[in-house]
Amino acid sequence: MANNSSPRIGILGGGQLGKMLCQAGADWHLPIHVLDRNHSFPAANYATVFHSGDFSRKEDVLEFGRKMDIVTIEIEHIDTEALHQLVAEGIKVYPQPDKIDLIKDKGLQKQFYAEEGIATSDFSLYADAAALRAAIASGEVTLPFVQKARTGGYDGQGVAVIRNEQDIESKLLDCPCLAESMVDIAKELAVVVTRTPSGAISVFPTVEMEFHPTANLVEFLICPAAIDSDTDTRAAKLAMEVAEKMEIVGLLAVELFLTPEGEILVNEVAPRPHNSGHHTIEACMTSQYDQHLRAIMDLPLGPTDLLRPGAMINLLGAEGHTGPAVYDGWDKLLAIPEVYPHLYGKAETRPFRKMGHITALGDTVQMARERAAIAKEVVQVISR
Amino acid sequence: MANNSSPRIGILGGGQLGKMLCQAGADWHLPIHVLDRNHSFPAANYATVFHSGDFSRKEDVLEFGRKMDIVTIEIEHIDTEALHQLVAEGIKVYPQPDKIDLIKDKGLQKQFYAEEGIATSDFSLYADAAALRAAIASGEVTLPFVQKARTGGYDGQGVAVIRNEQDIESKLLDCPCLAESMVDIAKELAVVVTRTPSGAISVFPTVEMEFHPTANLVEFLICPAAIDSDTDTRAAKLAMEVAEKMEIVGLLAVELFLTPEGEILVNEVAPRPHNSGHHTIEACMTSQYDQHLRAIMDLPLGPTDLLRPGAMINLLGAEGHTGPAVYDGWDKLLAIPEVYPHLYGKAETRPFRKMGHITALGDTVQMARERAAIAKEVVQVISR
Repeated sequence: MANNSSPRIGILGGGQLGKMLCQAGADWHLPIHVLDRNHSFPAANYATVFHSGDFSRKEDVLEFGRKMDIVTIEIEHIDTEALHQLVAEGIKVYPQPDKIDLIKDKGLQKQFYAEEGIATSDFSLYADAAALRAAIASGEVTLPFVQKARTGGYDGQGVAVIRNEQDIESKLLDCPCLAESMVDIAKELAVVVTRTPSGAISVFPTVEMEFHPTANLVEFLICPAAIDSDTDTRAAKLAMEVAEKMEIVGLLAVELFLTPEGEILVNEVAPRPHNSGHHTIEACMTSQYDQHLRAIMDLPLGPTDLLRPGAMINLLGAEGHTGPAVYDGWDKLLAIPEVYPHLYGKAETRPFRKMGHITALGDTVQMARERAAIAKEVVQVISR
Repeated sequence: MANNSSPRIGILGGGQLGKMLCQAGADWHLPIHVLDRNHSFPAANYATVFHSGDFSRKEDVLEFGRKMDIVTIEIEHIDTEALHQLVAEGIKVYPQPDKIDLIKDKGLQKQFYAEEGIATSDFSLYADAAALRAAIASGEVTLPFVQKARTGGYDGQGVAVIRNEQDIESKLLDCPCLAESMVDIAKELAVVVTRTPSGAISVFPTVEMEFHPTANLVEFLICPAAIDSDTDTRAAKLAMEVAEKMEIVGLLAVELFLTPEGEILVNEVAPRPHNSGHHTIEACMTSQYDQHLRAIMDLPLGPTDLLRPGAMINLLGAEGHTGPAVYDGWDKLLAIPEVYPHLYGKAETRPFRKMGHITALGDTVQMARERAAIAKEVVQVISR
């Protein structure tokens, strides 16, 4: 294993998740190849070999994948036809292409939960805005509800909360979509599960997400979540159930809703490293990135125990600033103890763009959260 | 700070210490440049830009350094004349060239301790083997003693333990050297100190080193050291005293002897990341590599608290194996909890070559040491 005898690993996508997978591979000096459009992407400098190409073009994915022993992804929006072809040619592809197909279509994903008896909110599928309007008119769909584009959504894009007639006029998405019943949410939780080809499974500690009021992005991510141990156990079991029923290989980030009555529903999943697992780099015995590499190589999984309570914030481009990024307040940031900034190296900032993240640790989750809140105050991604 | 506005950092040397400095820089997406002979060196793949050249050639160091804002080192055996010139031209060089000159000549280093009243073993300087023989003949030097080459020593090279007439015949080094009184050693300790240009200072927890009986390399490195708190405090204070009196910037690894009477003597120092600080990557709140980067950029230093007790082993090439390296037993290694292997990517193994290191953590230092001992048993660097 490793070096001379280690498999060539190819990652589709060179964003921050790809970069952090490369960083995890560096400890073992693994040969990691990355495919993305050009050298400006975060992972470009940290891949052993960076390949220029478009992961949504079948030919590019095929050409790249045929040089690899194992192909993986850091984004779902890739050409899966090429991945099916690669599997047929004997290349290992994790997560498996059919799982990516299932997950990237939120309609199929919800049907999977329904068929497998996995708790999730009620939903129905529509071909476009017109069909959805008809269903509202007929009373089949009642206000308020959440409309989600079946494909292409990302970071809060492709989601519309429809509360009233005005929202129907101004917010409705015109695409194949699902309408989900509005769930009364006490907390949003996430559990990252990892599964190997041999069926070994591990689960990271449950995290709690607090969303930014306007940007629909996670603002604080807290670990451990402030939930009782029974809820925690049920959240972990539900997440593992999804991974096992799906028979997925690699990471599966399972986003959950906890209702005021204590019911836990699966919201959606992502078959890759996830924003809700960034803190594992410093807070857990094994990071989600290390664990994913172990999984796709079918090696023993590492322990996932929490070393220190943590709070994670995304470092977003400041409002009113577009252009070459400058990180203002860096000295003040580093003067806070146990604060770990990660910058993604994106040259240009724009409002709410994910430019990096910061994990803060502490003796207690309160201490970690306070440190993260101070970090958020003192550092700003601006452009001069 | 960072990215667009961050300083270009140039590292002289592309070995494993350079590689791990590059890895530390990746979190902040720092532009890190490395100079070494060719792309086969461990850091080559992990530098933002790798420059081919010889760090012992003045012209190469000058050409490289003039493109940087800050120049640092991962090895002392570089051309310091060029570094003095770079400082004169306004480039920041940390550690400062005069400190490197002082440290790389073990004779000057010992004289510094003597002049500054820093506890160290008795010593005297000789021009060559003939001069040392004369001193032995005259009774100025008495058996047993330790002979050290003034310059060029590394990893146990350039050191001879002279116990008897036969050793004088077979082991004596013929070069400018020092003869040190043999010290009665209860434990060998090491303390890594960091100092910024502004004079801020931090100290990592004291480590205890156990040497391999034949290879004269550290076999187990244990942290925390099994010493009482008074000894610990004195060790940390002595190490900080050396760094402060030397006014060094960056890391200073201070190797110490603890005598059976509880006296602590400075053995020698290294002005760079050190083998005795590898475990800080996983075991401490801030790693020695992160801390060095913070220091040379004059940023606030991070906390150095121990998160978990740790034990580190060097992964050495197995005896009887020379050629392309294969890491045998990797699956078994990764099945041990809290074991963190680091491979340096050296293509060829040979007996006792440092091919990587493994840090094991645990609830107690005993547990960490046991895990490290099992790791040592199950993994082997061989050639097939």
